[in-house]
Amino acid sequence: MDTNDKQSAVSPPGAGIEWRREGDVAYVTIANPGHHNAITIEMWRLLKTCFQEIAGSPGLRVVVISGAQGAFAAGADISEFKTARATRDQVRHFHQEIIAPALLSIAHCPIPVIAAIDGACVGGGLEIASVCDLRVASDRSRFGIPIQRLGFPMAPAEAAGLLSLARKAVALELLLEGRIFDAQEAYEKGLLTRVVPLALWEEEVRATAQRVAQGAPHAARRNKWLIQILSGGPSPDLLSPLQQEACWDFVETQDYQRGVDAFLKKSPPRFEDN
Amino acid sequence: MDTNDKQSAVSPPGAGIEWRREGDVAYVTIANPGHHNAITIEMWRLLKTCFQEIAGSPGLRVVVISGAQGAFAAGADISEFKTARATRDQVRHFHQEIIAPALLSIAHCPIPVIAAIDGACVGGGLEIASVCDLRVASDRSRFGIPIQRLGFPMAPAEAAGLLSLARKAVALELLLEGRIFDAQEAYEKGLLTRVVPLALWEEEVRATAQRVAQGAPHAARRNKWLIQILSGGPSPDLLSPLQQEACWDFVETQDYQRGVDAFLKKSPPRFEDN
Amino acid sequence: MDTNDKQSAVSPPGAGIEWRREGDVAYVTIANPGHHNAITIEMWRLLKTCFQEIAGSPGLRVVVISGAQGAFAAGADISEFKTARATRDQVRHFHQEIIAPALLSIAHCPIPVIAAIDGACVGGGLEIASVCDLRVASDRSRFGIPIQRLGFPMAPAEAAGLLSLARKAVALELLLEGRIFDAQEAYEKGLLTRVVPLALWEEEVRATAQRVAQGAPHAARRNKWLIQILSGGPSPDLLSPLQQEACWDFVETQDYQRGVDAFLKKSPPRFEDN
Repeated sequence: MDTNDKQSAVSPPGAGIEWRREGDVAYVTIANPGHHNAITIEMWRLLKTCFQEIAGSPGLRVVVISGAQGAFAAGADISEFKTARATRDQVRHFHQEIIAPALLSIAHCPIPVIAAIDGACVGGGLEIASVCDLRVASDRSRFGIPIQRLGFPMAPAEAAGLLSLARKAVALELLLEGRIFDAQEAYEKGLLTRVVPLALWEEEVRATAQRVAQGAPHAARRNKWLIQILSGGPSPDLLSPLQQEACWDFVETQDYQRGVDAFLKKSPPRFEDN
Repeated sequence: MDTNDKQSAVSPPGAGIEWRREGDVAYVTIANPGHHNAITIEMWRLLKTCFQEIAGSPGLRVVVISGAQGAFAAGADISEFKTARATRDQVRHFHQEIIAPALLSIAHCPIPVIAAIDGACVGGGLEIASVCDLRVASDRSRFGIPIQRLGFPMAPAEAAGLLSLARKAVALELLLEGRIFDAQEAYEKGLLTRVVPLALWEEEVRATAQRVAQGAPHAARRNKWLIQILSGGPSPDLLSPLQQEACWDFVETQDYQRGVDAFLKKSPPRFEDN
Repeated sequence: MDTNDKQSAVSPPGAGIEWRREGDVAYVTIANPGHHNAITIEMWRLLKTCFQEIAGSPGLRVVVISGAQGAFAAGADISEFKTARATRDQVRHFHQEIIAPALLSIAHCPIPVIAAIDGACVGGGLEIASVCDLRVASDRSRFGIPIQRLGFPMAPAEAAGLLSLARKAVALELLLEGRIFDAQEAYEKGLLTRVVPLALWEEEVRATAQRVAQGAPHAARRNKWLIQILSGGPSPDLLSPLQQEACWDFVETQDYQRGVDAFLKKSPPRFEDN
């Protein structure tokens, strides 16, 4: 599958989501060259399409998702804040109709999904990793959701995905401090299945995929389904419609504009709580 | 209590569950000599009887459950797969009427229960440890639920018991990879109260039992009861009747037969997803 | 705010809760000199008042709560057991009308709250730390809830606060064993955001407060609110009215009198389960 043509009109050259099959393993690659694989709107759409295709492909036993060239995925693409995330309708659409369905397509993929993480796993990257089933990281990986500097809070479906992995205290730490964890701290705080030295990382990813693929496929599908139902992860439905709508109030604050402007100028933001 | 006579007709010689009392401590022993204390159907039944007797015995303040001779408990007894776990009715009965009540008898024991773990704590062994209140392990212990190689998924009540201890991500790792954790990894992933060198293990188990027994018995009972209600662990009731029935579909797959056959022959299974 | 006058009639000299403001940071201090900052009834009341004032003060971005002089807060004030915690009505009132509202005033504080912990963080001290958003501890801090030696179980709202931070297994360990954790063990068991050497602790607390304060205030408020709703912590409402009332039965046991007497005499308690 070459998705580059499809999305080249709206994304940077070379940006996209590709997947290929090797035997019973599907390999998904997140790519946005020169941007630490920041995820554009078109890439979120392709991610969903990609996992729908995988879910419909017979004979697959495990999915491995990774980033191209030394990063898993940094957050969002900077250039889209001013064009596609500037109004209440836009941010509601972006979070509810673009990102949420993409994350659900991974969480609900009937086949086990391994996040193979090297380098930056930040913002949307950590959101993707959180809804995978296993997370194998290289020791130079780093993790965070520093969106408080951009002036906006986490959206409900994305927070629910994070909380299906992270304890409440760890989610609060990530969001309130905006600090970046190294791989060891992320492991200690329950965000990772395991951390291995970079030199052994590809081998460990392969070995993990093989262990999963060697189990009975019926058992794998049922175990993923059962554990998800019983662990009863948090749902955005815990919010009333009014509460859900309040999640987009940020777009009307000046601090959101200040945060995004500072990010674009690579200068520290100064918020005024208005 | 000598249970050997009672179950010698259906279990290997010497296999059984015994308990004895030393002062205000009840010691329960899981034994299946030569089989790493693999748990037979009769042993699951005896486990329930045993905890019912303990719950009804006045003056006890703490229960310690351990395995005989260098193992806590490995999974199920191999010989019973072909006779007592071969049809839908049999597996439904085995998991819902035999194992689930045994695990509940431990979880609902009004007195605190300590799992004293040395050696293999695998499959049913880890299920038992998960529903105890504290877990003190020697450093040579090892943990896992490698049933994906046997071709069947975890049953709902057993998964609920596991999830009352393990985070969702750890439960998925145990089930999807089928890998064995050493004691240190099990501790890091929240499965253990503490790990001590083997030479100090018996002493630490005794000291732990003593600390529990020295507290006010009324406070201990109320604390166990309160924490269980408030932590609101996962329940198989989250599954609809149809979903519960779907948990036994595996018995009609050829992969289940392949997995059990390979296990009996000690050869690697080759699953075909049918 | 100088609260010493207000509460000097009922508390030891110098005991109280004070808060002051430095720029956009509110600093709250728990003080009970010579008693490791044990918390009197009046101090629980002042804690609530204090957080209500903070919630109503414009321009604040983060709250730091700490203890005076080498301790965070030890449990309750010994002297009040015989006077204000001796009857069913008294203990019900104490736990439901005094402590529960104080803890809720912290949990519901719209601004992020950091517990800066040095020394004893025990009983009520750990209850306070559990409902804060971040916990930065010095390496000489220690943690526990050894109330089983006093003969009473944890009250429902306090247990719910603990379980909003601690895993079920860790809560059971704290309550059933009554053991004290050092800072490293508390971190490993998920009770702490981070542990730093004492010499660096004040600096790390300041740096943490600064990181929180530098984020957009709107985002911080929404993130705290959202994560609390979605993580859906345990609520005392999971108990029926009859079950709630059963939580105060301890006050009519002789073991409660034995536990408190032993505590006052600093001798080991001998419980008889009556």
